[in-house]
Amino acid sequence: MPEILRVGVIGAGYWGPNLVRNLSEAPGADPVAVADLSPERLESIRKRFPAVRTTTDHTELFDDPKIDAVCIVTPVGTHRRLAEEAFRAGKHVFVEKPLAGKTADAEAIIRAAEAAGKTLMVGHTFVYNPAVVAVKEILDADGVGRVQYIDSQRVNLGLHQFDINVLWDLGPHDVSITLYWLGEEPEWIQATGACFVQSDIEDVVFLMIGFPSGALAHAHLSWLAPSKLRTMTVTGSKKMIVYDDVQAVEKVKVYDQGVDKLSGEELRRSYRAGDIHSPRIAVTEALQLEMRHFIDCVAKGKRPRSDGEAGLRVVRVLEAGMRSLRSGGARVAYHPEGVRA
Amino acid sequence: MPEILRVGVIGAGYWGPNLVRNLSEAPGADPVAVADLSPERLESIRKRFPAVRTTTDHTELFDDPKIDAVCIVTPVGTHRRLAEEAFRAGKHVFVEKPLAGKTADAEAIIRAAEAAGKTLMVGHTFVYNPAVVAVKEILDADGVGRVQYIDSQRVNLGLHQFDINVLWDLGPHDVSITLYWLGEEPEWIQATGACFVQSDIEDVVFLMIGFPSGALAHAHLSWLAPSKLRTMTVTGSKKMIVYDDVQAVEKVKVYDQGVDKLSGEELRRSYRAGDIHSPRIAVTEALQLEMRHFIDCVAKGKRPRSDGEAGLRVVRVLEAGMRSLRSGGARVAYHPEGVRA
Amino acid sequence: MPEILRVGVIGAGYWGPNLVRNLSEAPGADPVAVADLSPERLESIRKRFPAVRTTTDHTELFDDPKIDAVCIVTPVGTHRRLAEEAFRAGKHVFVEKPLAGKTADAEAIIRAAEAAGKTLMVGHTFVYNPAVVAVKEILDADGVGRVQYIDSQRVNLGLHQFDINVLWDLGPHDVSITLYWLGEEPEWIQATGACFVQSDIEDVVFLMIGFPSGALAHAHLSWLAPSKLRTMTVTGSKKMIVYDDVQAVEKVKVYDQGVDKLSGEELRRSYRAGDIHSPRIAVTEALQLEMRHFIDCVAKGKRPRSDGEAGLRVVRVLEAGMRSLRSGGARVAYHPEGVRA
Amino acid sequence: MPEILRVGVIGAGYWGPNLVRNLSEAPGADPVAVADLSPERLESIRKRFPAVRTTTDHTELFDDPKIDAVCIVTPVGTHRRLAEEAFRAGKHVFVEKPLAGKTADAEAIIRAAEAAGKTLMVGHTFVYNPAVVAVKEILDADGVGRVQYIDSQRVNLGLHQFDINVLWDLGPHDVSITLYWLGEEPEWIQATGACFVQSDIEDVVFLMIGFPSGALAHAHLSWLAPSKLRTMTVTGSKKMIVYDDVQAVEKVKVYDQGVDKLSGEELRRSYRAGDIHSPRIAVTEALQLEMRHFIDCVAKGKRPRSDGEAGLRVVRVLEAGMRSLRSGGARVAYHPEGVRA
Repeated sequence: MPEILRVGVIGAGYWGPNLVRNLSEAPGADPVAVADLSPERLESIRKRFPAVRTTTDHTELFDDPKIDAVCIVTPVGTHRRLAEEAFRAGKHVFVEKPLAGKTADAEAIIRAAEAAGKTLMVGHTFVYNPAVVAVKEILDADGVGRVQYIDSQRVNLGLHQFDINVLWDLGPHDVSITLYWLGEEPEWIQATGACFVQSDIEDVVFLMIGFPSGALAHAHLSWLAPSKLRTMTVTGSKKMIVYDDVQAVEKVKVYDQGVDKLSGEELRRSYRAGDIHSPRIAVTEALQLEMRHFIDCVAKGKRPRSDGEAGLRVVRVLEAGMRSLRSGGARVAYHPEGVRA
Repeated sequence: MPEILRVGVIGAGYWGPNLVRNLSEAPGADPVAVADLSPERLESIRKRFPAVRTTTDHTELFDDPKIDAVCIVTPVGTHRRLAEEAFRAGKHVFVEKPLAGKTADAEAIIRAAEAAGKTLMVGHTFVYNPAVVAVKEILDADGVGRVQYIDSQRVNLGLHQFDINVLWDLGPHDVSITLYWLGEEPEWIQATGACFVQSDIEDVVFLMIGFPSGALAHAHLSWLAPSKLRTMTVTGSKKMIVYDDVQAVEKVKVYDQGVDKLSGEELRRSYRAGDIHSPRIAVTEALQLEMRHFIDCVAKGKRPRSDGEAGLRVVRVLEAGMRSLRSGGARVAYHPEGVRA
Repeated sequence: MPEILRVGVIGAGYWGPNLVRNLSEAPGADPVAVADLSPERLESIRKRFPAVRTTTDHTELFDDPKIDAVCIVTPVGTHRRLAEEAFRAGKHVFVEKPLAGKTADAEAIIRAAEAAGKTLMVGHTFVYNPAVVAVKEILDADGVGRVQYIDSQRVNLGLHQFDINVLWDLGPHDVSITLYWLGEEPEWIQATGACFVQSDIEDVVFLMIGFPSGALAHAHLSWLAPSKLRTMTVTGSKKMIVYDDVQAVEKVKVYDQGVDKLSGEELRRSYRAGDIHSPRIAVTEALQLEMRHFIDCVAKGKRPRSDGEAGLRVVRVLEAGMRSLRSGGARVAYHPEGVRA
Repeated sequence: MPEILRVGVIGAGYWGPNLVRNLSEAPGADPVAVADLSPERLESIRKRFPAVRTTTDHTELFDDPKIDAVCIVTPVGTHRRLAEEAFRAGKHVFVEKPLAGKTADAEAIIRAAEAAGKTLMVGHTFVYNPAVVAVKEILDADGVGRVQYIDSQRVNLGLHQFDINVLWDLGPHDVSITLYWLGEEPEWIQATGACFVQSDIEDVVFLMIGFPSGALAHAHLSWLAPSKLRTMTVTGSKKMIVYDDVQAVEKVKVYDQGVDKLSGEELRRSYRAGDIHSPRIAVTEALQLEMRHFIDCVAKGKRPRSDGEAGLRVVRVLEAGMRSLRSGGARVAYHPEGVRA
């Protein structure tokens, strides 16, 4: 195991340079090479990171024995092929979210990782976000009682994608966070949406996920909203949590209030108001924490928090969401065959 | 037509006294009598309104020829019987929302009003709310372009009802406002929910309504949320509106921003930021405006904004929402038989 | 001591009816009579409170042996004369804030109370406000360390007075709250202001108060501001508190942050961020709590929290503030002669 | 006049690298050299900007004929000496704010610029901030009527300085913005403050400035506050403006409300509520706009918006503020001798 992980990055579009920057800032790693089909993008990389080698031929990275790991930051349709090649070349692999566009591809990537005996990590950055982790710790310490439902607003007037709809663009965040928090697999998925700006690309989707425990998750995903909202509300049987990622301070608030019990004449007193507590949240960039986790998992052979299975579960939910969207919002099973693993 | 409308109120529970107060403040009307089965409630009415006659027998109000109109502020299951009696006695009738618990009952009340030739008005107070009316005026003046979707958050840790679920409790507000704004009848309804506190009463419901124009309305209705939210966002093809009823000022904001057009290389510039304008909203209480509208409609024989048909449409949506809830969130037609009127 | 305190109220202008209502709701008291020079105002009182006797001759209240206490809710210039008469007639006396327009008058009222052996309470309602009391309890429990400074914003586009300036109109709130919290007498006062709308009535005043402990209080008082602000920030050596009376929830927030210690190379780390805690605040109306306190103090012969001395201290600060205003904002001593009591 | 302005930067502490970055991004300029006494800082500059020459001897920059202009980003005590040297060497000079610590030094720098016939610009970045400029344009178009007063809150739990107090640290922003907006010279200054953390360095200062027009400016400057506030409220005789630099959107709001006129019986109606308008503000970084302005002024021989005279006026106000602080908050003349220029 090398002391410094030498990393190659494939894809220098919008997100790739952020990985290069964070790898260069993280102790224990060095971004040594970047591959992209666009010479302009590579030129821009060289300007900012003079020490990084660039190439339009990504196979150079696989062939270079001095490269220990690769980050695949390319369109989702290429993930399977690139990841399989990388594992065959004996590299550890970080794949940007979503892991794949189809369950079958995600499963193939997992098999390739197992065959190679190398680390596979998926870029669900939010599960490394200090506020998301703080909520997870509260939930694990039974801080809110039984989780009843999670409501999420992830909307703004934003970047419209041409190749994927808002479910695949914004949905991975809510799904990965929700599965991380709840620690259980979904039972059913329901999604309704509409295409207002482009004729075949949903720009608004309402996603709902049912869980065996009875918990419900709902997300409003939209590229068509006047203000940026990034709010997730967790309602528990004893307390409630609001996680608002747009806030600079008080990103997480715990409301010590709930419904005590209902009795006939005291309807209006049936709920309990209480204190509100906002724990301090570290301001470290989530992507930096994610890169450090990847480096650490490779170094120690640990399973990443967002491993291949976590990535596969997100793909399954999104795929089920697409089936629901295409059938007018019908409720569909998380396991299409009704078979549990 | 009497100069002063003499009104009897049936039902002195939570909402009834508010009607009595507003009738006593409105020019052109006098609350002359209140009926309720509870002597304690009547005692409380007498204390606050010494000039108002009280009785435990509501038929006294129907028999009194000096009473011109009655307000029915009783549990929804009694609306049809009381309204039919009132119309038979020749009274004008104001019925609290929802008009009825079943389409058939709502239709019967409308028929009774037509047979009596008297005014029927339903207490959808929000369509008299100055902020809601201001939004309607902006929409009618083509202020936002084509309405694409309306998203509503109507949640708080609130009063749990024993006899009706959150769809019937909070849903009438969103449905009546949405139908008023859009001026078209729905095509389909979808509702998903859950019962967390009481075993058979949904305390959380996500309601979706599809319209022939392609517009979509979505409402998050909940008795289980840490903060009170009363926000409706209207996304139009040119501008957007946020109506936030919780705000003391800036209840309505018009965002001069939207998506211009999409072109390949300019994805991140595809939307247009703009000014934000917040029109002054009068602070008059909506219930006072509603009572004055009732008085005015009776005096001039005008059709109320929230007439029987408007009340019936709301009942149809809620009834369809219940069918959807009971069938696991399936999309159901607004007209069950698929027949348009 | 009567079981029920029979109270007469002198003055039925803007504030008087609120006292009558709260007295009628408070256990242990009955508002039995109201005096005012205006028959219209008395008519309005009779409508709302049929059981209350009204008169244009306030001496009737003094002469009535069945009246135990009077509330003086009249222009400040009349307080001394009315209070002295009331004490001579053997009544307990509640005087609206400010106690008087001059120190000499305030002192005379205190002497009259002492001579009569009756209770004197001043209507500094805010020191009965549950949020203000919650802050006091935190300070008394050494919750923030040594108080360094208190900054207050008490502004809005509001009711302009003709007879008093904004210092006398809004200042009593900040001064009474600050003295209650700090529990020490001021050392010096400084006030700067301006008259923009009326030529001789300051509509904007910046008030500063220095204390022997080194604590500083600053208040921005204005009738000319676009939004209503009611915020007081207490900076302590260990923690900080924000009390925002405009908020419906989270009126009080305790910030567990401060400056640890300064060392050369770690300037940017010199302060400590921490959790934020918002204690639940009861929603009881402050005026109701104030009335109950008055009733309780009379019944048990207790000294009110806002007794004559407390009222006198506020008058002293305001009087000193006027001297400062009139001398171009010069710093003036709290005790004009430089003599401490 | 060279096509590309070649700029040397003296001082690579906290702010200097920001200038280097913005100069490298601005069209028409190149940062060619950086001088600093610290080799570590220069090493950091070389890493980020490999093309920039570095030196510990700032006179190299003056001696280099290929350098057209220098930016002086050093402690304020060195500004005069460095600026005089730079002008003698025939360079255009940008001096970070405040221009100097004493009026005499600021005047000497102005004389040196005039003698050399070169451009002198002071780094009052905020007068290039798009929101501040937007407010200026509204004021110039008579958008609020006569300006009555400006209240500013510039506070947070922040970086404590060792050599200057909060008046010199944060005050230059408020003073430069206020003078830019009002376009008149002050008449008097008053400042009160306190030293809570360090014994001789004020960490809280309340600054007041009186103007010949009757306008008043007030600023609360503090390193000891729980939340970051950057709010300036402009009250005009017709409308009001709030500029809140902490907001991501709606940085500027214009309130169409004011006091109409006062008449006896209509006190509570004396003010006029109205619409609120929030103009779109460009998101360009103020420092980039400032650098472009410097480049443009040098190229065209134009007088900068923040020229030496503007910088001198700010120094005069701060110096007067110090005299007031040291005399217990007494009001002091802007022109110490009472002589107007």
